[in-house]
Amino acid sequence: MAYSSKLIEQAITEVAKLPGIGKKSALRVVLHLLKQDTQETSLLAGALLDLRENIKYCSVCHNISDHEICAICSSHKRDDTLICVVEDIRDVMAIENTDQFYGKYHVLGGIISPIDGIGPEDIKIDALIKRVADNDQIEEIILALPATMEGDTTAFYLTKKLQEFNLKITGIARGVPVGSELEYTDEVTLGRSIMNRRQI
Amino acid sequence: MAYSSKLIEQAITEVAKLPGIGKKSALRVVLHLLKQDTQETSLLAGALLDLRENIKYCSVCHNISDHEICAICSSHKRDDTLICVVEDIRDVMAIENTDQFYGKYHVLGGIISPIDGIGPEDIKIDALIKRVADNDQIEEIILALPATMEGDTTAFYLTKKLQEFNLKITGIARGVPVGSELEYTDEVTLGRSIMNRRQI
Repeated sequence: MAYSSKLIEQAITEVAKLPGIGKKSALRVVLHLLKQDTQETSLLAGALLDLRENIKYCSVCHNISDHEICAICSSHKRDDTLICVVEDIRDVMAIENTDQFYGKYHVLGGIISPIDGIGPEDIKIDALIKRVADNDQIEEIILALPATMEGDTTAFYLTKKLQEFNLKITGIARGVPVGSELEYTDEVTLGRSIMNRRQI
Repeated sequence: MAYSSKLIEQAITEVAKLPGIGKKSALRVVLHLLKQDTQETSLLAGALLDLRENIKYCSVCHNISDHEICAICSSHKRDDTLICVVEDIRDVMAIENTDQFYGKYHVLGGIISPIDGIGPEDIKIDALIKRVADNDQIEEIILALPATMEGDTTAFYLTKKLQEFNLKITGIARGVPVGSELEYTDEVTLGRSIMNRRQI
């Protein structure tokens, strides 16, 4: 598509680099900003720059935090014996929303994905091993990783690495989602949920 | 949703103000930026600020332009007698992509929409009237406005305002889209396309 201005072309190119935003949505975003006060654009740009430059990660669990140690890690109400390993902070939010988990987290910041060039050394695996080695209190590691090949690879790698410690290693349950009809569940999920059936 | 950091909350709030982006997509965008180099965020923020501060509008047609007068308005290859009135620059791009129009444009920058508080004085209607009054060459005004109530209201208002000039005022054809099955076309469109049938 031909744009009538280099400035708008540049802005669209940058916005379209964001995930889930194509050229058409980028154009919509840019035209929206042009209709708003200049201040709105300053606020947006300022918030992004401020975030990128001043963001801190919790030194214990690597969750995003405003402090050296995040609110969850520094809370005395959370169970120190239980660590839930997740891919990124979205998973922390999702699990926190369930109100079903009272342990602590470890945010890997990614999962092993050779196709994307992400190896074990690119994510916080060493930090997890060190955390486990330094802390005798930890009894169980819950692997709450995506149900994908990359998730399974990461889980397998972590299980191997954590074997030397005296720990219970668990994975979150996979199966038919609550509220789903069996006929609409994909075969792999349904097959696994039969394989991993539980006594009632 | 509770965020673990004020910085990320602020960034998500700003990104989620953009059209077509909800809180979840905003979080995805923000996490994407955090994974990229700081430079990527600077480029994005810079492009948006640069656009917002330095954008120019063509003084003739009000299309976005890098110059005082845009490439279309200053082109000698375009027909000066024909002006196509559109809502915004996306419509200019869409029409330019068809390669079917060789006249000039007039970008209103919006349409009359009482619900959104947009009246005739908020868009470039006066500028169009002035342009028509100052230029004897113009013979036809094509109203290429959205096929919505707001589009029709704007077309009606413009037609009234332009009546005093000796002009042909036309609207783009509405009907069954090319390649569409009749049975899947909505009743209003199909009804209008029968009403406005043409001799073959």
